[in-house]
Amino acid sequence: MKRKVALTFCLAAILALFLMTTGEAATHRFKPTPAQYYYLFGGGKAALKVAPGDRVILWCEDALNGKIRSTDDLASKSGQRPNPQTGPIYVEGAEPGDTLAIKIVDIQFDRDYGWSPLPPYGGFLQSNQFTRMLQDPLPEVMYIYPINKERKTTTFVSHLGKEGYSVEIPWDPFMGTLGTAPAGGEHIDALTPYWHGGNMDCVETKPGTTVYLPVNVPGAMWSTGDIHVTQGDGEIIGGAIEITGWVTIDVLPLIKGKKVNTPRFENDEYLMSVGSIRPLDDCLRIAYGDMVDWLMEDYGLDRADAYQLLSQVGRVRVGNVVDTLYTVVAKFPKKYLPRK
Amino acid sequence: MKRKVALTFCLAAILALFLMTTGEAATHRFKPTPAQYYYLFGGGKAALKVAPGDRVILWCEDALNGKIRSTDDLASKSGQRPNPQTGPIYVEGAEPGDTLAIKIVDIQFDRDYGWSPLPPYGGFLQSNQFTRMLQDPLPEVMYIYPINKERKTTTFVSHLGKEGYSVEIPWDPFMGTLGTAPAGGEHIDALTPYWHGGNMDCVETKPGTTVYLPVNVPGAMWSTGDIHVTQGDGEIIGGAIEITGWVTIDVLPLIKGKKVNTPRFENDEYLMSVGSIRPLDDCLRIAYGDMVDWLMEDYGLDRADAYQLLSQVGRVRVGNVVDTLYTVVAKFPKKYLPRK
Amino acid sequence: MKRKVALTFCLAAILALFLMTTGEAATHRFKPTPAQYYYLFGGGKAALKVAPGDRVILWCEDALNGKIRSTDDLASKSGQRPNPQTGPIYVEGAEPGDTLAIKIVDIQFDRDYGWSPLPPYGGFLQSNQFTRMLQDPLPEVMYIYPINKERKTTTFVSHLGKEGYSVEIPWDPFMGTLGTAPAGGEHIDALTPYWHGGNMDCVETKPGTTVYLPVNVPGAMWSTGDIHVTQGDGEIIGGAIEITGWVTIDVLPLIKGKKVNTPRFENDEYLMSVGSIRPLDDCLRIAYGDMVDWLMEDYGLDRADAYQLLSQVGRVRVGNVVDTLYTVVAKFPKKYLPRK
Amino acid sequence: MKRKVALTFCLAAILALFLMTTGEAATHRFKPTPAQYYYLFGGGKAALKVAPGDRVILWCEDALNGKIRSTDDLASKSGQRPNPQTGPIYVEGAEPGDTLAIKIVDIQFDRDYGWSPLPPYGGFLQSNQFTRMLQDPLPEVMYIYPINKERKTTTFVSHLGKEGYSVEIPWDPFMGTLGTAPAGGEHIDALTPYWHGGNMDCVETKPGTTVYLPVNVPGAMWSTGDIHVTQGDGEIIGGAIEITGWVTIDVLPLIKGKKVNTPRFENDEYLMSVGSIRPLDDCLRIAYGDMVDWLMEDYGLDRADAYQLLSQVGRVRVGNVVDTLYTVVAKFPKKYLPRK
Repeated sequence: MKRKVALTFCLAAILALFLMTTGEAATHRFKPTPAQYYYLFGGGKAALKVAPGDRVILWCEDALNGKIRSTDDLASKSGQRPNPQTGPIYVEGAEPGDTLAIKIVDIQFDRDYGWSPLPPYGGFLQSNQFTRMLQDPLPEVMYIYPINKERKTTTFVSHLGKEGYSVEIPWDPFMGTLGTAPAGGEHIDALTPYWHGGNMDCVETKPGTTVYLPVNVPGAMWSTGDIHVTQGDGEIIGGAIEITGWVTIDVLPLIKGKKVNTPRFENDEYLMSVGSIRPLDDCLRIAYGDMVDWLMEDYGLDRADAYQLLSQVGRVRVGNVVDTLYTVVAKFPKKYLPRK
Repeated sequence: MKRKVALTFCLAAILALFLMTTGEAATHRFKPTPAQYYYLFGGGKAALKVAPGDRVILWCEDALNGKIRSTDDLASKSGQRPNPQTGPIYVEGAEPGDTLAIKIVDIQFDRDYGWSPLPPYGGFLQSNQFTRMLQDPLPEVMYIYPINKERKTTTFVSHLGKEGYSVEIPWDPFMGTLGTAPAGGEHIDALTPYWHGGNMDCVETKPGTTVYLPVNVPGAMWSTGDIHVTQGDGEIIGGAIEITGWVTIDVLPLIKGKKVNTPRFENDEYLMSVGSIRPLDDCLRIAYGDMVDWLMEDYGLDRADAYQLLSQVGRVRVGNVVDTLYTVVAKFPKKYLPRK
Repeated sequence: MKRKVALTFCLAAILALFLMTTGEAATHRFKPTPAQYYYLFGGGKAALKVAPGDRVILWCEDALNGKIRSTDDLASKSGQRPNPQTGPIYVEGAEPGDTLAIKIVDIQFDRDYGWSPLPPYGGFLQSNQFTRMLQDPLPEVMYIYPINKERKTTTFVSHLGKEGYSVEIPWDPFMGTLGTAPAGGEHIDALTPYWHGGNMDCVETKPGTTVYLPVNVPGAMWSTGDIHVTQGDGEIIGGAIEITGWVTIDVLPLIKGKKVNTPRFENDEYLMSVGSIRPLDDCLRIAYGDMVDWLMEDYGLDRADAYQLLSQVGRVRVGNVVDTLYTVVAKFPKKYLPRK
Repeated sequence: MKRKVALTFCLAAILALFLMTTGEAATHRFKPTPAQYYYLFGGGKAALKVAPGDRVILWCEDALNGKIRSTDDLASKSGQRPNPQTGPIYVEGAEPGDTLAIKIVDIQFDRDYGWSPLPPYGGFLQSNQFTRMLQDPLPEVMYIYPINKERKTTTFVSHLGKEGYSVEIPWDPFMGTLGTAPAGGEHIDALTPYWHGGNMDCVETKPGTTVYLPVNVPGAMWSTGDIHVTQGDGEIIGGAIEITGWVTIDVLPLIKGKKVNTPRFENDEYLMSVGSIRPLDDCLRIAYGDMVDWLMEDYGLDRADAYQLLSQVGRVRVGNVVDTLYTVVAKFPKKYLPRK
C-alpha cells in the first residue's frame, strides 16, 4: 500500500506536468489591500480561491509592512505587527487528510532596498523572552541594503558609515513564511513555525523547490509572505534582508488521502524533511526521523538500512534559531535513492 | 594590538610557506605499536616530538582497533575501548597561551573495507545514557562497506543482503578526532569533543583544512585518529564509515601568545569556528559567538556589523550529535572578508 | 509608580476580602453540556459571565471525557480529544492590559476512581513526536485508581494484579489546566501551556493558591479543567491521576492596567512565577527572570540584590515535562520579603 | 539475584550500625596544607587512607581558598582557581566495580562570614561561555554574609548598604562537591559534576544523607569541599553562601560487586537518583530513569509499574544550573516502597 502512495505521488507529478504543458491552468495575480493582510495561520476568510494546477502570482509585503524606509526607522518604534501574510488561499478539493503540494517558481523584488535590524533583545546572540537573561540589550540598529538589479546583488553597509565596512552580497531569494491552517482549530501567529509550516525562515523554500504541507481544514487555507533577499543559516540576528515583491507559485495536484506529518520539501537534488520546535536537538530529531519514515514508506528501505544510509549521506540545513520555535531541515541526496 | 595579532598570523603563514618551499622541514612517519594507543586527551607520554614546519605522516587505527572484520562482529561484543589516538605529539616551542596550527594535507586508506554500526541504544534516533528512555533498543547491526580504490567510492550494502538495497557512495575522508591536551590538568576521554578539539567528528577536518587548537601544556601534546571514509551531517547512527589509514599533516609555525578560545578551522573558502557542548543550541552560540570575535579581532569589524553581516552570509555545518558532547561549525565565506 | 502598582494589588486584596465577607458577590454553579466543552484557549463563545468578586463552582470533565472506565479502556483507543475545558468564562470589566486574579478555594471529586495511562510513545521516558526516536513504544497500559473518600486517599494497583505491588497515596488535588485567551488572536490547544497559562499541569494550582493571568481579550475568557487527584513532579508518564469533579474558584478584583508577562501564583507561603516553553532550561530562565522582575517592581529590590537573594532562597517546582511545552515554577518564600 | 544485591545493601547497613555502635572504627581528623589542595577528580596522590567503618572529620577551604574577605574582593580579581578539594581519600578494599557509601553526619562552620558573588558573565541569568551572547555583563558585585552562630542564621545585606534591603536567613549547610575518581582515566575539573559526582552543588548532600558513588579506581579516591551555608535551587547566581569549616563523614561498608551508574542519595525520607549533564531535560531523564532502575532492581517493581508510580509520587530537586554541567535529583518517598 505504501508503494501505492508513492505511485500516487508520481502520477500527481505527471499530471502536474501535463496540466502545465497544456496550459489549461488558470493564473491568479493577487495583491492584497492593506486591510487584507493576515497575521495568523488558521482562521480568517479566503482571500483567493484556486484549483490544483493553477498558478498564483502573489504580492507580499515585507516583515514590517513597509514601515522601514531608512536607518532611522527602528524596528522597535515601528508599531507594526510583524509578518503580514498574503492569503489565506483556498484550494478546491483539498480536504483534511490530504497533502498540499506547491512549487515555488519565481521571486521578483519590487523595491530598490531591503532592510535588516539589530533589534533590542534580538536574535540568537542576545537574550530574549525565552532565553531570559538580566543583561541590558545591545544598542538597536537598522541596516538598509541597496538592491542592484543588474548585478543581482545587494550591499551590506556598516552602521558606522564610511568609517565602517561595506561588501556586496549576491541574491538568493526565498519565502520566509509558507504554511497551511493548523490542525485542531489552532490559530498560530505568523511568527511561529510548526507542523503546519509557517515562519520556517528556511533558505530552502526558494524557486525550484516543491513544498508539501498538511491539509488540516477544507481548502488547506495556505498563505505566504516575508520575502528574503538572502539569509545566513539560522537568521541569527532575527532578520534576513527583508523586501517586498512578487512570488510565483504553482499549485500542484493534491496528494489525496495521505497527510505529511511535518512539512517536506523537494528539489532536483534533495528530499527534505522539516522539524520545527525547541531546542535544535528536537528539530533535528523530527527532521531526520521523518526522513527515515519517507525512505521506508516511499522507497521501501528497511528501518535499520534507512537509519544507516542516512547517517552516511544526510545533510542538515539550519533554518532559523530566532523565531518562537526553531526550524531545521534534514536532506537526503536523491542520487542515492532506489529507482521506484 | 589586535592588528598585530592578525599580522602575526600572516607572518606565520608566510614563514610556513617559506619553510615548506625550502624543504628544510623534517618528515616524521609514525605508526604506533598496539601498546602505544592512547584513549585520552591530556596526560600520557609524548609518542613523537616534532618542530613547527615539520610534516607528520601518521598511521591511525579505526575506532575499534580493527576488531570489526565482518557483519558478524558486533560493536557491543568487541570488548574494545573506542577511539585509539595516535599521539600525543609534542611540538617544540609550544607553550601554554599559544595556538597550534596544523594543516591536514592528505588521507590514505590502507584497508579494503570500512564499517559502521547500528549499536544498541546507539545514535541520535535511539535513546542513550543521557537522553534516557525506557524503551528497548533497536536490534544491533554491523555494516561492512567495501572500498573501491579506483572509483574512490565505497558501497552501502543492506543488512538484508540481496533482498535489500545497495548504493555506491563517493569518498570524502576526514579525521574524526583531533585535539590537544586540555587546560587545567583535565584528562578527557577520546570520545568527547570540547574546548581542546577532540572527538569533533566534523566533516570539515579534511585535507585542505588548517586547524587551530589551544596550547594548554608545554608541547601542546596533540593527537589524532578515527579516520572516516565519509559521514553524513551529525553522524546520527553513532558511527561514520570507519577505516584505518595514513594521514599527512603539516605542523605550521606556532601562533605565539594568543590562544584560541575554541577550535578554529580555515580552508580556501571559509573561516570556521567550532562549538562543542550540549544541547545543539549552545554549540551554535559558541561557534557563532566565536566567529563574531574573530571578525572583530582580526578583521576590524564593529560588533553590530559583525553580527549583522554574519547573519546574512553565515553557514552552519553540524558535526556530531551522538558523542558525549555535540559539535557544530559556524562558517564565514572568506570572499566577504575585508582585505587586511 | 511601581509602588502604586503594588498598592493597587493591596487594595484589590482588601476589596476582595470585603466583598467576600459581606457576601454581596454572586455564586455561579455551572456544569457544561457535552456540546459545551471547548478544547482551545482563545476563540469560542462565553459559557458563563461573571463579575469580579463572584464565586464560580464549576464541574470539570476528566482529560478524556469520562471515556476510561476500566483497565481495558486504552487511551489510544478512546477516540477522544484530550483536555475538555469548562469555559470560556467572561469576566465583566476585564480589558486587554489587565491582570485576572482568581483564587482556587476547593476541589471536590465526584467519582469513585481516577485513571492514569502508560500511553504508546507516552511520557518523558519514552520517545515522542518531538524527541523522536526509532525505537518501538512500551506496551500500553491503563491504571485505575480507586478513591477512598474517608481516608482521602487513592490506591496504586499494579497492572500485574495480585502478582504486583499496591500502595495507598494521599490526595493532593489541583487543576491541570487554567488559562485565559492568548494574545494576538492565537487559539492554542488545551494540551499546551504558554504565556496565557493553559495546560501547565503544575501541582501549585491547588486550593489556597491565587492565580494571576494576563487579560488579552475583553472579558479575559478564561477556562479550567483536567482535575488531578495528585501528581508527581513532571507528570512524567504523561498523565496524573485523572478525575472529574467540582472546583470552587473566587474571581478576585481585576488588577487594572498592569498585565503579568507570564502566569504568577501566590499562596500564604510563596510568590511564584511560571515559565512554559522547551527545553526546561528556558522554562527556568523565564520563571526566575520574572521573579527578579516581581521583586524589583513590587518590592523595590535592586537588580543585583534580587538576583543574589533569589539565588540563596529560591525554590523550583517542576510542573510538567510531557506536554507540547513544559512548565516550571520558581518560588520565593514570602517570609524573606520586605514589608511593603 | 537482584534481591541478593538488595540484601547486601541491608547487611552492609547493619554492619555499619554495628561498627559505629561498638566504636571500633577509627576517626581521622584531617586539615590539608595549602599545597595539598587538589582541583580535579581523578589522579593525584591519596591525602588520607581510611577503612570502611571509619569516621573522617575534614577541614574544607571555601570555593576561592579564603581569598574573599570583604565586598571589595571581587571574584574575577582573586586569581584563584576555584573549588579546592580535600582529598583524594583512599578507601581500603574499594575496587573498580564497587559502590562507595558515605554518610554525611555533621557540618561545622569555622568562620564568622560567608560570601557570594555576582560574577561577570556569571550565573544562569547572564550569558556565559556556553550560552554565549554578545551583551555586556552585569556589574560585578561581592556579597558578604555575616554568620550568627547563636541564631544559626546568616544575613543578606544589599550591595547598596543602608539604602538597600537586608534579611536574615537560616542555615541549611551542605557540601557543594563530593565525588570519586572518574572512570576510564579521566581527570575532571572540580567545577564539573558528572557520573562520578563532583561539583553537584545539590542541597541534598547534607547531614543525614548517605551518598552512593561509583568506585572506578582502587581505593575510590574520593574527595569533598565547597561548603555552603545555604543555597537556593539551581544556585542561579553561580555561587551559594561560601564558607570554610569541618565536615564529619562516616565511611560505610563498601557495596561490593555492584557499581551505581550515577550517584544516588538516601535519607530517612527519600531514595534519590542524580543526573548531571546539559540541558536540564537530560539531567531529569537520567535521574528519573535511574530511579526506575532502582525500583525495579532493588524493590522488584515491574517496569510499567515503576514508571507509573513514580509519575504520581516522584519529586524533583534542582541542584545547579550554573556549573559546566547541571545537576538534578529525582526523589522517591520511601513510605511508598514495598517492604523488603
